[in-house]
Amino acid sequence: MLYAPGDVRVEQRPDPTIEKPTDAVIRTVAACVCGSDLWPYRGIEAVNGPSPMGHEYVGVVEEVGSDVRLVRPGQFVVGSFFASDNTCEICRAGYQSSCVRREPVGALGAQAERLRVPLADGTLVATPEAPSDDLVPSLLAASDVLGTGWFGAVAAKAGPGRTVAVVGDGAVGLLGVLAARQLGAERIIAMSRHENRQKLALEYGATDIVAERGDDGVAAIKELTGGLGAHSVIEAVGTPESMMQAIRATRPGGHVGYVGVAHGVELPGEELFFSHVHLHGGPAPVRRFLPELIDLIHARAIDPGRVFDLTLPLDQAAEGYRAMDQRRAIKTLLRP
Amino acid sequence: MLYAPGDVRVEQRPDPTIEKPTDAVIRTVAACVCGSDLWPYRGIEAVNGPSPMGHEYVGVVEEVGSDVRLVRPGQFVVGSFFASDNTCEICRAGYQSSCVRREPVGALGAQAERLRVPLADGTLVATPEAPSDDLVPSLLAASDVLGTGWFGAVAAKAGPGRTVAVVGDGAVGLLGVLAARQLGAERIIAMSRHENRQKLALEYGATDIVAERGDDGVAAIKELTGGLGAHSVIEAVGTPESMMQAIRATRPGGHVGYVGVAHGVELPGEELFFSHVHLHGGPAPVRRFLPELIDLIHARAIDPGRVFDLTLPLDQAAEGYRAMDQRRAIKTLLRP
Repeated sequence: MLYAPGDVRVEQRPDPTIEKPTDAVIRTVAACVCGSDLWPYRGIEAVNGPSPMGHEYVGVVEEVGSDVRLVRPGQFVVGSFFASDNTCEICRAGYQSSCVRREPVGALGAQAERLRVPLADGTLVATPEAPSDDLVPSLLAASDVLGTGWFGAVAAKAGPGRTVAVVGDGAVGLLGVLAARQLGAERIIAMSRHENRQKLALEYGATDIVAERGDDGVAAIKELTGGLGAHSVIEAVGTPESMMQAIRATRPGGHVGYVGVAHGVELPGEELFFSHVHLHGGPAPVRRFLPELIDLIHARAIDPGRVFDLTLPLDQAAEGYRAMDQRRAIKTLLRP
Repeated sequence: MLYAPGDVRVEQRPDPTIEKPTDAVIRTVAACVCGSDLWPYRGIEAVNGPSPMGHEYVGVVEEVGSDVRLVRPGQFVVGSFFASDNTCEICRAGYQSSCVRREPVGALGAQAERLRVPLADGTLVATPEAPSDDLVPSLLAASDVLGTGWFGAVAAKAGPGRTVAVVGDGAVGLLGVLAARQLGAERIIAMSRHENRQKLALEYGATDIVAERGDDGVAAIKELTGGLGAHSVIEAVGTPESMMQAIRATRPGGHVGYVGVAHGVELPGEELFFSHVHLHGGPAPVRRFLPELIDLIHARAIDPGRVFDLTLPLDQAAEGYRAMDQRRAIKTLLRP
């Protein structure tokens, strides 16, 4: 529970129960702290009284409502931060995080021993078998940061023959690098000034590192791309500076995939107009990608769980937040 | 020449000559007044001393520079508002209006008897034969407003099975309707409150008319699309209000193609993020579409020249501007 900026407490709460026939209740096997959890933790987003936290989770289904058909007790499942019916016209177009019936899971608090998941059939995806313990971090990453980095790469049209730049070296940015590599990008430029993150970016497939930011970072990308800019830029921060850095580092006709939750961003229309970039992003429709991502993880083709460089028992959640806030950890995994 | 807001004068100027070996000089057969010419005419854009005006033109080649290979004297040609080499990497990707060597033709003044066109081989497209006189207005439309409406429709991914809304009922918006129809859109909603423009929109293929604007206009589009919004929205105005109307009328995952030259637009990042729309636009790469558009016009498959509802001799250019400013004319064609 987040009581106020900087004030995280672990406390006993009533076990969640089935409230609607489309619900499931899962026993959380792992949860984690998101970069977006740091916005209210840092007081940049308002905290309205004690709030359950967490929207990334994997677990075992304990109970399902009477209308649930696809998910069964005992299954190991991966969900994501918006519950979706996965049947409406918006879901079928691949935008489950804008489902007409969507519900934010974060309000229910996935950083907990148990979680009620609305619209279970449309939200949860079962793994082909109970995963071995070493796969749990990667499956947990699929729940948000991998799915979000993947969406950023897809929105930026990362693919064969394309040069991709990634703005942001948090877990989402690093997994944007991984996604761009999987999608076949020719060249991947990670923008990072932290040595441990540069190292992981290179291991995930980055071909170049640019440590400069802002105008200098844009100039460095231009220099690496014959003066034109990258074909694809993944924006994984959400500040005015990072958005403009992404737009300016993209060549005319190129694509910006922006997945950092926008805070205080105002885009200048005239500059955007003459930039000629494609702009697409928003809350990642993780559900669209989950089946493929789960398969890649089970096949051990990708190892996104390496973004978790701190694992703590759930009752030390406060330290997990502190470590990320102080950049001592890229991402904290919590074990109930 | 525009001397100051509202002050258009026709005067004798020296004939243009070949200045670079890649230039051509054409005898202008027809030119016209653009909606974007009204920005400085109305004083919304600064006028820095007497300025040649006009960037839409068709004509007959009189002379070419020594490096010109593809264009020959005597040919009837269509050009557009940015000269481009049509060979650089940006041009080859279809963004000729961001060519690394681009030059604005508007600075040279196409509302004139003769015009120097830089980078003639990459800029001018010859018609298959000398067109009959009744095709001239349509070929002139291809030079900007048709190419721009077409780009808006392409950027908005207008096509089979899609509902397209068009914000703006000027020549570009009306030709966006025509383009959406040609591209196979299932349903086309023209947003217009002017009876003569509604009529032309319907003749160009609109299936619905929405007269409301702003929030009411968005609500009307939602009502016509099961509450979801249009798949594709073409924005052809360029004001803060029209941009937000376009974004809000688009469903999550849908596409906004914005081609109105942005003036005073600031896009709120957070709303854009959660809108889940694709945003693409800018100065239309008309050159990309010219060969196809010229073919359609010569085959009389489309009749974009109908947007010209006022034709004047060049020496009455001032009246042409006034009529458009006062909305007495959709678009003025000028005959030297």
